[in-house]
Amino acid sequence: MQKYADMTREQLQEEAARLRQIYQEYQGKGLKLDMSRGKPSSEQLDLGMDLLNAIDAKSLMEAENGLDTRNYGGMDGIPEAKRLMAEMMEVRPEQVIVCGNSSLNTMYDMVARGMLLGYLGQTPWCKLDSVKFLCPVPGYDRHFAVTEHFGIEMINVPMTEEGPDMDLVERLVAEDASIKGIWCVPKYSNPQGVVYSDETVRRMARLKPAAADFRIFWDNAYAVHHLYGPENGRLLNILDECEQAGNPDMVFEFASTSKVSFAGAGISAIAASEANLADIKKSLTIQTIGFDKVNQLRHVRYFKDGAGIAAHMEKHAKLLRPRFELVLRTLERDLSGLGVGSWISPKGGYFITFEALEGCATRIVALAKEAGVVLTPAGAPFPYGKDPKDSVIRIAPSYPTTEDLQQAADIFTVCVRLASIEKLL
Amino acid sequence: MQKYADMTREQLQEEAARLRQIYQEYQGKGLKLDMSRGKPSSEQLDLGMDLLNAIDAKSLMEAENGLDTRNYGGMDGIPEAKRLMAEMMEVRPEQVIVCGNSSLNTMYDMVARGMLLGYLGQTPWCKLDSVKFLCPVPGYDRHFAVTEHFGIEMINVPMTEEGPDMDLVERLVAEDASIKGIWCVPKYSNPQGVVYSDETVRRMARLKPAAADFRIFWDNAYAVHHLYGPENGRLLNILDECEQAGNPDMVFEFASTSKVSFAGAGISAIAASEANLADIKKSLTIQTIGFDKVNQLRHVRYFKDGAGIAAHMEKHAKLLRPRFELVLRTLERDLSGLGVGSWISPKGGYFITFEALEGCATRIVALAKEAGVVLTPAGAPFPYGKDPKDSVIRIAPSYPTTEDLQQAADIFTVCVRLASIEKLL
Repeated sequence: MQKYADMTREQLQEEAARLRQIYQEYQGKGLKLDMSRGKPSSEQLDLGMDLLNAIDAKSLMEAENGLDTRNYGGMDGIPEAKRLMAEMMEVRPEQVIVCGNSSLNTMYDMVARGMLLGYLGQTPWCKLDSVKFLCPVPGYDRHFAVTEHFGIEMINVPMTEEGPDMDLVERLVAEDASIKGIWCVPKYSNPQGVVYSDETVRRMARLKPAAADFRIFWDNAYAVHHLYGPENGRLLNILDECEQAGNPDMVFEFASTSKVSFAGAGISAIAASEANLADIKKSLTIQTIGFDKVNQLRHVRYFKDGAGIAAHMEKHAKLLRPRFELVLRTLERDLSGLGVGSWISPKGGYFITFEALEGCATRIVALAKEAGVVLTPAGAPFPYGKDPKDSVIRIAPSYPTTEDLQQAADIFTVCVRLASIEKLL
Repeated sequence: MQKYADMTREQLQEEAARLRQIYQEYQGKGLKLDMSRGKPSSEQLDLGMDLLNAIDAKSLMEAENGLDTRNYGGMDGIPEAKRLMAEMMEVRPEQVIVCGNSSLNTMYDMVARGMLLGYLGQTPWCKLDSVKFLCPVPGYDRHFAVTEHFGIEMINVPMTEEGPDMDLVERLVAEDASIKGIWCVPKYSNPQGVVYSDETVRRMARLKPAAADFRIFWDNAYAVHHLYGPENGRLLNILDECEQAGNPDMVFEFASTSKVSFAGAGISAIAASEANLADIKKSLTIQTIGFDKVNQLRHVRYFKDGAGIAAHMEKHAKLLRPRFELVLRTLERDLSGLGVGSWISPKGGYFITFEALEGCATRIVALAKEAGVVLTPAGAPFPYGKDPKDSVIRIAPSYPTTEDLQQAADIFTVCVRLASIEKLL
């Protein structure tokens, strides 16, 4: 196909007229399609029904250390759940605290602890005039929402194909002691699907921050969420790397089974150094009577171990792959060669990122909406919802049926082309 | 029996010698008994096993509003769980947010919100020089631990048979704008078992605090935890009373099923005014992807409604009553008439409070420990662990078997008598 930029004004106008006709046909259909939500489909959730069904209740009562899971106590998780989550996160069980059903909540709590209590005896951030976080962009909107909620200033750091721009990260954390954290989704990053390179992980672990209480918030949300097998998702162990670099306390790692078992009823975990864990437990003892240990044991009984999780994730991949490939095929079919944007083919995670011509993302999302396709709001993957180039669109193919998804993708490419021509004209 | 205070020195010494012999016999047995923990026994937990057993998994998948409980969303709880918790708390479903497995965590979060975010647009407490809470004493140690954790100054308010000393509460909150909250366990109070009188609840609701962001933390932990039926636990509805008094936003009410279903795997809730709920939801949306809705629906399927909960609580009472009566009988048998302390016969809740002679509590707890009986540390029911009179001991009869409990109670009364004689001599 010919590049739009190489077309004459007349050719573009003709193309626009043709596209508008197609677009209006879609509009007439009164569709209600949604590619905005990075959540599992019902079929994916059905994969885990035996978690609720097939486990003998008697086997859920007692943890291997004799603790009655139904009673109070066991504030940092039952041992076998620590092992399970450790295998998933590729860390050691003694580095793990098993938490409740939401790793977002676990991260929120960790930021709140930084704000209110301070890490390892450091000044609580709420007592400081300025607190900042580095935010690799595009990134996960709910990370940015947490830091914004607490009034923490967010600084954009561009993502590269290897992870965040480490030159910039190194310089910023070294020179500014008010920078207290960085949000990272190191494997199949939200939304681009980037896996941090070994070099990136090592440089991250060797940071020399001006702030003693600087922390890497390592949200390993897609630790086992491969689309094409684990070999594409190889990631260095940040806890080991930090330890080797003499920065054992500089990282908190998070994960959950939200997209393994159930998005609403899974278990989450945090992994950290011995000193950090002791610090967290001190505050957990005050905060809660312990997380849901019956649900922890339920997960252990069902998945058994890391291999059990891996086998289960292959079933998820079987449902997700066709959806991702359908969207990518449609982008290729309709947009390739037009010079109206680019996209990445992720090897795991939950999103496809489309990068439109500068200034077009908001318009594309609006056009799609008027034709019945809900997309994540333009700007969402950026702090304060502001995409400086207004070009990034996050596509979430997991939730719709393949029929709906095909129609949504067809409409999306029409909207991209229309918005691009509007810009070029 | 003769009052110890009326005995001669010689009589007391003789009594002490006799008791020391009994005490040493107990010591020789190498017992390991525990009356410290206000937690349900295994038999109580077994009452709820059908929650894990007998509910068809398919019936756990979908809430009545069509929400897939297994997926993200429904951040404030599914409608039928709101109804269930509302019936338990005697409030309206629209006043309820259903939360996770720990109401302590829900309370911690609310105090943390006051600290970090401020209620309804008020200044976050972490920005103030001084923040204080009123603490009716004796009270619940874990309430006091939360406020201490956040550096909030705690002021003791004596409990009466009708609830906290309201003359003092009224005066303090009216004159000091740094007083931001009061901890209350209004029904079967921890540890005394006091049910707040109508007069107390009304005066509480009509408080005229100097601080606009003053809140009553109404921990209705024992809302349905009657030992002798609900008529002993009649409590005015604080939300209604606050509304009528023109203070609709002044109260947060909390409850959980920890001692109804499972202490580790129940559900909790907060009830509050419309404005407060909107404020909380704003922050919940940032904090979490929603609480465990599968577990919420599991509780609804099992208990069905308030009547179902009441029937279930009668089974708990059947197990708890003999334990309470055993301890009370033993206190009566061994201590009545000696003038060595007093106790209350609670009509619900989880504790019996023994009030020893001034200065004797620490000694009694130590003596018991050396004879193999663990009691809650003296001072625990007071802020900073300091009982000004060193006289209150919290006895928790729920967890041990009746055999163990009888032995522990026998030892306890010996320790009380020994410590009392030591003081009198």
